[in-house]
Order: sequence, then C-alpha cells, then structure tokens
Amino acid sequence: MAKLVEYDESSGEVRAVYDDIRLTRKSQDINNFWKALANHPPTLRRTWEAVKQVMCEPGSLDPLQRELIYIAVSVTNGCQYCIASHKFAATAKGMSEAMFGELLSIVATANMTNRLANGFEIPLDEKFKNQ
Amino acid sequence: MAKLVEYDESSGEVRAVYDDIRLTRKSQDINNFWKALANHPPTLRRTWEAVKQVMCEPGSLDPLQRELIYIAVSVTNGCQYCIASHKFAATAKGMSEAMFGELLSIVATANMTNRLANGFEIPLDEKFKNQ
Amino acid sequence: MAKLVEYDESSGEVRAVYDDIRLTRKSQDINNFWKALANHPPTLRRTWEAVKQVMCEPGSLDPLQRELIYIAVSVTNGCQYCIASHKFAATAKGMSEAMFGELLSIVATANMTNRLANGFEIPLDEKFKNQ
Amino acid sequence: MAKLVEYDESSGEVRAVYDDIRLTRKSQDINNFWKALANHPPTLRRTWEAVKQVMCEPGSLDPLQRELIYIAVSVTNGCQYCIASHKFAATAKGMSEAMFGELLSIVATANMTNRLANGFEIPLDEKFKNQ
Amino acid sequence: MAKLVEYDESSGEVRAVYDDIRLTRKSQDINNFWKALANHPPTLRRTWEAVKQVMCEPGSLDPLQRELIYIAVSVTNGCQYCIASHKFAATAKGMSEAMFGELLSIVATANMTNRLANGFEIPLDEKFKNQ
Amino acid sequence: MAKLVEYDESSGEVRAVYDDIRLTRKSQDINNFWKALANHPPTLRRTWEAVKQVMCEPGSLDPLQRELIYIAVSVTNGCQYCIASHKFAATAKGMSEAMFGELLSIVATANMTNRLANGFEIPLDEKFKNQ
Repeated sequence: MAKLVEYDESSGEVRAVYDDIRLTRKSQDINNFWKALANHPPTLRRTWEAVKQVMCEPGSLDPLQRELIYIAVSVTNGCQYCIASHKFAATAKGMSEAMFGELLSIVATANMTNRLANGFEIPLDEKFKNQ
Repeated sequence: MAKLVEYDESSGEVRAVYDDIRLTRKSQDINNFWKALANHPPTLRRTWEAVKQVMCEPGSLDPLQRELIYIAVSVTNGCQYCIASHKFAATAKGMSEAMFGELLSIVATANMTNRLANGFEIPLDEKFKNQ
Repeated sequence: MAKLVEYDESSGEVRAVYDDIRLTRKSQDINNFWKALANHPPTLRRTWEAVKQVMCEPGSLDPLQRELIYIAVSVTNGCQYCIASHKFAATAKGMSEAMFGELLSIVATANMTNRLANGFEIPLDEKFKNQ
Repeated sequence: MAKLVEYDESSGEVRAVYDDIRLTRKSQDINNFWKALANHPPTLRRTWEAVKQVMCEPGSLDPLQRELIYIAVSVTNGCQYCIASHKFAATAKGMSEAMFGELLSIVATANMTNRLANGFEIPLDEKFKNQ
Repeated sequence: MAKLVEYDESSGEVRAVYDDIRLTRKSQDINNFWKALANHPPTLRRTWEAVKQVMCEPGSLDPLQRELIYIAVSVTNGCQYCIASHKFAATAKGMSEAMFGELLSIVATANMTNRLANGFEIPLDEKFKNQ
Repeated sequence: MAKLVEYDESSGEVRAVYDDIRLTRKSQDINNFWKALANHPPTLRRTWEAVKQVMCEPGSLDPLQRELIYIAVSVTNGCQYCIASHKFAATAKGMSEAMFGELLSIVATANMTNRLANGFEIPLDEKFKNQ
C-alpha cells in the first residue's frame, strides 16, 4: 500500500499540484488517490493535468456525462477505488440512484454483448466500415 | 465465423425477433450481430430484449448518453464490432466528432488511472465508504 | 506477425516437440500456434507440456468439458486465435451447435453479472467465506 | 457499497423476483447479489431472468458444467464475489476439490496461451476459417 | 476507422505536435497512431506529451526496458496496434528475438499466475503488507 | 479462500516442490501463493516449474527486468496478490521507489494508448507488418 503524502508534509511540485487540486475542486480535501501518486511527483503532476483537462475543461460533454463514462470504464475493469471515488463525484454532480442503476445496466449489457460478438466472430457490416 | 441468418431465411422465434427489431429501429436493416445470434434463438431473443430495455425504454439517461456509455465499455474491452456498431448508432443520435474525441479521452484517462489505483494499492477514503 | 517454423525446417528441441504433438494429437497437422512459438524453443516446449497436461491427462473433467472452459476464457479475453482453434477442437470432441450457443450465453451472462457485482460493490455472503 | 434490500423490506416487483428465486433455488436464502440489484428493480428482474434461463433451463450442458464455465469467466475477470458465489454453487452441484483444481489449471493455461497468441500475432490456420 | 491526418494537411496545434514528434524521434515518419489522434487535437497533444515524458525523459529505466514494459501491457490487453508498433520500436532499441521470446514467456506466465491467485482467493502474506 | 498447506503438513510431490522453492529462493519462507496451489499438487508443480524457468534461468533479461515485466502485467490485470508479491521481490532485487514510479507511469500510459488505438480503430502502418 502506498504511503499517503499529506498536504502538510508536501512541498515543491507536490504542494503546487495539491494547491491546484484544492482550487479546482473548491475543497480543502485531497483524495487518497493524489496522496498516493505524490510518491512519484512527475506522475502526480501529469495525471492531475490529464484528469483536470478531460474532466473539467469546457467541451461538448457535460460534467455528469463525463463521470458516468468514467464509472463505466472503472466498473468494466473492476477498479474498486475508481468506482467508489467517481460514484461519489457523480452523485455530487447530480447522479440519482435511478441513473446509477441505468448506468450499471448498460455497462453490464455491453460487457455481455462484447463477448457474444467475440464468440460468434461477427464480421463488420458494410455500413460500419469507413464511417 | 458464425453463419449469418438472413431475414428471408428466418422463421419462428427468430423471425419474431427480427420483426421487432425492424419495428423498434424503424428500419428494414438488421445488423450482422443479430443475424449471428440467430444461430442460437434463445440467446437472440434474450439479448435483444435486454438491449431493447436498457437502450430504448424511458429512463433518466437520454439515448445518446446511453450510446456513449456503450462505446466506453466496448473500447475498454477492445471489442471491434461493438465499437463500430455503437459508433454508428451514436452518430445517428447526434454524436459529433468532437464528442467522440472527448469520449475517447475520458475512456483513455480512466484506463490510465484505474492502473495507477491498482499499482499504488490505494486505500478507500473514509468518505467513499458506505455511500 | 511471427515467422511460422514448418516441420521440415525444424530440428532439435523444436522437432522433438513437433513429434510429440503429432503423436499426442494423432495427426500430422501442426497448428500455427506451435509453429509461431517455435521461434522461442523453451516457450514452445513449456507451453506444450502445460497444454498437454491440463487438456490430455486423465482427470475428473472430460475432454469436451475442458475445451468448453478453454473457449469461455478465450471469449472473455477476446483472443480470436484461441476462440477459433478451440472451437475447432471442441467440435471434433462432440460440441454441437446448441452446446456452443449455450456456452456463449453463459459466458455472456457471467461477464454481465461480474460487472454488476463490481458496480454495486457487493459484500460476500457469510456462507461464501471460508468455504 | 450497495444497500442490501432484505426480503422483509421488499415489495412489488422486487418481492416477486425474490419469491421466484426462493422457489427456483428451493431455499429461503437470497444471496447478497440479488439484494444489491434490488436497488434497481428492472435490473434485478432482467438479470434474474437471464441467470435463471442460462443456468436452470433444460439444455445440452448439465448444471455442473454450467457452473464451471461461470467460474472460468469470473476467475479470468477477477470478480471476487462471483468466484466465491459460483464456487459455492458448483460445490453444491458436485464439484470436487480435484475438479476445482483442474478447472483453475485450464483457466490459467488459457490465459497464458491467449497472450502468446496475442504477442506472436499468430495468423488463423486455414482449417479454422469458415468453420 | 479514423481518418489519418497527414503532415501536409496539418496545421496549428496538430502541426506543432507533428514537428515535435519528428524532432524527438529524429525521423520524418509519423505513425498512424498520431495521425488518427489528430482528429481530436487536445488528445493528440496530451497523449504525445505523456508518451514523450514516460518513454523519453531521463530516469531510472533505460529506453529498451521501457519498451518491454509497454509491450507487456499491450500483449495483456490484446491491443494489436500497440504490440506491433512497440515491437518495432523495441527492436530499433536493441530487442533481440531471444529477448522478445523471454518477454512473452514472462507475460504469459504472469497472466497465468494472476488467475491462479484470483481463483484460489489467496490472502496476502504478512510481509507483503505495509511495504 | 484456499486452505494454506504449511511445510510441516506437506508430503510427497508438494514437499518436493517446497524443498525446491526453499533451495532456489535461498529462504525457508514459502509464500501463500504456493501454499494455496498445494491444494492441487499437479498445478503446484507445473506452475513452480514455469515460474522458476521464466524468472530464474539464465537468459537475455536480468532478474530485475523480469520482475518489472511481471508487475506490469499484474497491475494491468488488477491482481492484488501478484502486485504485492512481485513488488516485494522486485524491491529485494534492487527496484527503487523511483523505478517503481516510472514503471507505473509507463503501465498507465500504455493502458491509455491501448484504448485510443482501439477507439480510433487505427490501421497498422506498413512498416509494422511482416516485422
């Protein structure tokens, strides 16, 4: 289990990232995820920049949609930490219990049909090529 | 590679599902996916019912959101058929090129952070428990 | 794509494994899988010994059951080569089209429920512990 | 972690599914899996119908074979809950410790050879095409 | 299949990334991977920065070791494009056929033992905790 | 959870493998992994022989490189036991905290780009074919 680097122990590049997380999230709280990544500062910085860009910058998808997609991937991979942390974030952004249930039902169904496509070795329809 | 059961060859349970697909999709076209599943009629029927329910029934998520989630799972699993077919469906429901790019950037980032969470063996934050 | 080492080109350790494959399989034919592994002879030998042991040695599971399990894993992982080669082997050992359809329906359903268990973060029932 | 909906709290669609589980399983006990899915009744109902069909309806594969296939998928995906619950079910249907060991040895070997097929980028043998 | 944005068609942010790829790689050639990502310029830029940092910046692991690790992941995930492109890169950095064979044998064995650990539900040794 | 077969309880084939593990590892300690596999002696023996060969026999890759590759696979698959045990082994063979951080950053980036290659359905460059 990674050592968790607390805010008060942090300095330099780690402290700068922590401050940007606090500012962006509008919260003093820093998740264990970032405290663990702080063991390798370049990974902390690069990962935070990536997550900030894809989750927080203006774009065509709204913040809640982005969280739903994040959960879909994490559930498929079975990543317990990311499921729990993004469920928390999605709930804060308006995910209802019904939406979470619908999300899981789609994720489960897609995982099912992905294997049926594998197993039946289904060839691409012409209309799906060169789209 | 599975034999594809064409509409004109179909009968009984398979024909009934094909007709429901045509009616629901408002199109005469039937994807290779269903034509392959028709080799095992109970799987065709059950899978179609599941996909119809989670993708078409009224709910909290709109049809495009559902397609984005489906693509997110299929990209994570590397299922070429499901990526292509649901990209086609999502485009028909309004997915722009920009939205597709954003979707993939989130899927890619989630796959990255899922492994950082695994590798650093990060413990759950208290606030993520019992939510 | 790996170079395929043909029987006539083979010698030494590779030839010895090829001869054992022919003897065990009661066929002159050697699959591309082994011809590719022959690029690294120790991997060829060790992999063949493992496959021979788990698929051919006497045990509690019959040869067809073993092939069904092999296909279940390969479909879950989306390994096209292993799906096709073990579908071929299973058919030779008596797998009917109906059995293949049932197999895929179970594999698909298990992939679905695996994600529901992940997503709902379901705790183990007491009776499942310490079994 | 999902709230577990107990039988005594259940009503409507959830209660109807619970009663069918009890009847089908011939046991008053309801697994946590179903109690968690009850948070989204349509998913509970559809998932139960699917599991009941593929695991309990008459077919070419016997009940124990079906459980072995289920475990093979769950072990490949690393789904702890499904491994434990289906190991329990398989044991009740006659899986011996030797069978479980053989099952895992096949699952492990298939996961190994799936990656050798990936890594060596092995082309399909002619005889595996169009089967 | 994504449209490939050729160097001569590129401009702005895409052109700037392409120029940096050429400079860093010391080659006029730009892989299809980057030409496809150019469909979503922010993803192109962020992904290139990440790959450049983890693969090219000074550190404790040498360039060949980094490529071997990249291949190990890609083989495990079954990503055909990344296997082929990083095999090409690794060979340019000194990977011999023997090293590739050894690499695959480790990847295959790890995929095997990962599933044995899952299936036997093995508890962590005391010495592995809190390291 | 598998029963752990302790050295003092072991006999026959299991005892012989345990003795070889002790001799090879130059330590009296036997990991839980082997104690669990001892429930199925043929799997214990075959797995130990495979791990010993790919991790300990002379070859082109040094012992630490082999452990890094092992961790890369285990992190990608999310196998907690194998991550922890091979992190322990790698540390004993000289992996610094910086190397571990770099390793995880490559594993995370490869998991990210694997999905971008999937999602953009990128065709192989000519130079990557027939290598």
